[in-house]
Amino acid sequence: MSVSEFEIIRRFFAGKGPQRRDVVRGIGDDAAVLRVPEGHELVVSLDTLVKGVHFPDNAPPAAVGHKALAVNLSDLAAMGAEPAWITLGLTLPERDIAWLEGFSAGLFGLAGTHGVQLIGGDTTRGPLTVTVQAHGFVPRGAACYRGAARVGDDVYVTGTLGDAGLALLALNGGFRAEGGHGGYLRARLERPAPRVAAGLALRDIAHGMVDVSDGLLADLGHILAASGVGARIEVERLPFSDAMLAARAELGERHCMELALSAGDDYELCFTAPPARRGEIERVFSALDCRCTRVGVIGPGSRLVCVWGDGRAYRPARRGYDHFAGG
Amino acid sequence: MSVSEFEIIRRFFAGKGPQRRDVVRGIGDDAAVLRVPEGHELVVSLDTLVKGVHFPDNAPPAAVGHKALAVNLSDLAAMGAEPAWITLGLTLPERDIAWLEGFSAGLFGLAGTHGVQLIGGDTTRGPLTVTVQAHGFVPRGAACYRGAARVGDDVYVTGTLGDAGLALLALNGGFRAEGGHGGYLRARLERPAPRVAAGLALRDIAHGMVDVSDGLLADLGHILAASGVGARIEVERLPFSDAMLAARAELGERHCMELALSAGDDYELCFTAPPARRGEIERVFSALDCRCTRVGVIGPGSRLVCVWGDGRAYRPARRGYDHFAGG
Repeated sequence: MSVSEFEIIRRFFAGKGPQRRDVVRGIGDDAAVLRVPEGHELVVSLDTLVKGVHFPDNAPPAAVGHKALAVNLSDLAAMGAEPAWITLGLTLPERDIAWLEGFSAGLFGLAGTHGVQLIGGDTTRGPLTVTVQAHGFVPRGAACYRGAARVGDDVYVTGTLGDAGLALLALNGGFRAEGGHGGYLRARLERPAPRVAAGLALRDIAHGMVDVSDGLLADLGHILAASGVGARIEVERLPFSDAMLAARAELGERHCMELALSAGDDYELCFTAPPARRGEIERVFSALDCRCTRVGVIGPGSRLVCVWGDGRAYRPARRGYDHFAGG
Repeated sequence: MSVSEFEIIRRFFAGKGPQRRDVVRGIGDDAAVLRVPEGHELVVSLDTLVKGVHFPDNAPPAAVGHKALAVNLSDLAAMGAEPAWITLGLTLPERDIAWLEGFSAGLFGLAGTHGVQLIGGDTTRGPLTVTVQAHGFVPRGAACYRGAARVGDDVYVTGTLGDAGLALLALNGGFRAEGGHGGYLRARLERPAPRVAAGLALRDIAHGMVDVSDGLLADLGHILAASGVGARIEVERLPFSDAMLAARAELGERHCMELALSAGDDYELCFTAPPARRGEIERVFSALDCRCTRVGVIGPGSRLVCVWGDGRAYRPARRGYDHFAGG
């Protein structure tokens, strides 16, 4: 059976997932037409996933669909934005119905959770590459930026760090997850849950905010560079999952620290806020049923210093992921 | 020398081209923050170009940069939208400084012509793939849609048709362009000029409108399907360039007709308008110094019929380009 480009769009994408009232025209014309609510600014983020680079050849298609959206919603969350619409640029080597069914299910599963509508895109033939652009809103002037951290702020991270890196280590045979931890870790790698609700709740609290995609050191580094400040991180405060705690005996503490600091793919939020907001932050995250850990403090200068609990310097082995470094 | 992802962005993309006042935050944060003017709707279009599919391996990088933007501006033009911002998803096999310089020059050359700002994107490593999303505005309710053609409307096309197809034929050795026609044809293939001004001028005149990217038959077919109407095209009215006229002796009239009807990659506008607007349309295009040709009429039914000047049926060999047809 031959499947045309239009048939692919009709069967797997058009009319699927939430249908929003602010979409004047979605899929099916030369372009989509949309209404941004009055008094709001538009927030847009674009991320590309490439087979063999961002996900393995045998990644479940539903995981690819989920993750392509999740990484973008995570970027919107880091701005404090409410997600609304997505576009999809999908390049496929062949019409693979089973793959498309899985991909579509993963994409629209997460889209449904967050009420976002697919409004357009392009389907082309070529090496498997997925580009999603997410669009959201913030009230005028309310977006959170990387450059707003101030000396004296606390540094926080949501959730736990290093799980995706640990999952990758397990997939590559470098570590064996015990009991239920294997499934948990795989979900953290393949189906990250973007911190959309946390981002919205932090909009009027956070100073600097960023999502942790390339590792805490690299991404907190963006806040420091943009804000013209330094930071001191207490590595023993880094939030570990039960799976990471269970792995620590086998891998050693230092290996776990490295995963938490620089393995990346966490899709947690890192933010700074003044000490006066500590109680409020605790209440917000308690209500969200989301972990949030104070891991350090913003200071003068420009350096990011890691220390043990007793004040001794901790020297990280590497700082984060860069697609073209050393190339 | 190693070139990092951040260095690529800094050197070839950040701060280049027009910088607009409606961009609250462009490149450099988790997402861009933008202001859509009051009383306007947002119009977005996304297109992907893949090496070996949409452009040959040896395509000049400046042509790839130009065309990746042009095809999207053409989609916005077909909605009657004024372009404003673009994002770029660029997947590259390696850090190739010369390629990036050319690509950036081509992209920002056309961006400068139309006053559009690059506001964000993603640079990844993988097979060469370029995804551009263009964002523009229309006054609320003023966008032109495919579904607005009415029985009795005239059918028009801007510019000339089939030149990109003829250029491809020449590149593949199937035809030799004489004199200055070679350069003209190559420019039509590699550096199409999106009909932005025409699209804006037609916003209050056109009924149905579409851009001609897959060939006149396929794209006019979209207007017919969306509007629930048929059309009759007089093939002898199809606008040929001097280069096409010069090729006709060698290729034969029928071959030229086929190129004009279905080779695609024209990036002209096809639109319908009532006969009462003929004078106005003539004045608009005269002022724009842009060719515009009446090629047929909208009728009842759902068929697209092609006829010779004497009324005999013309049967096209194929209807347009589909990435997955026959796969």
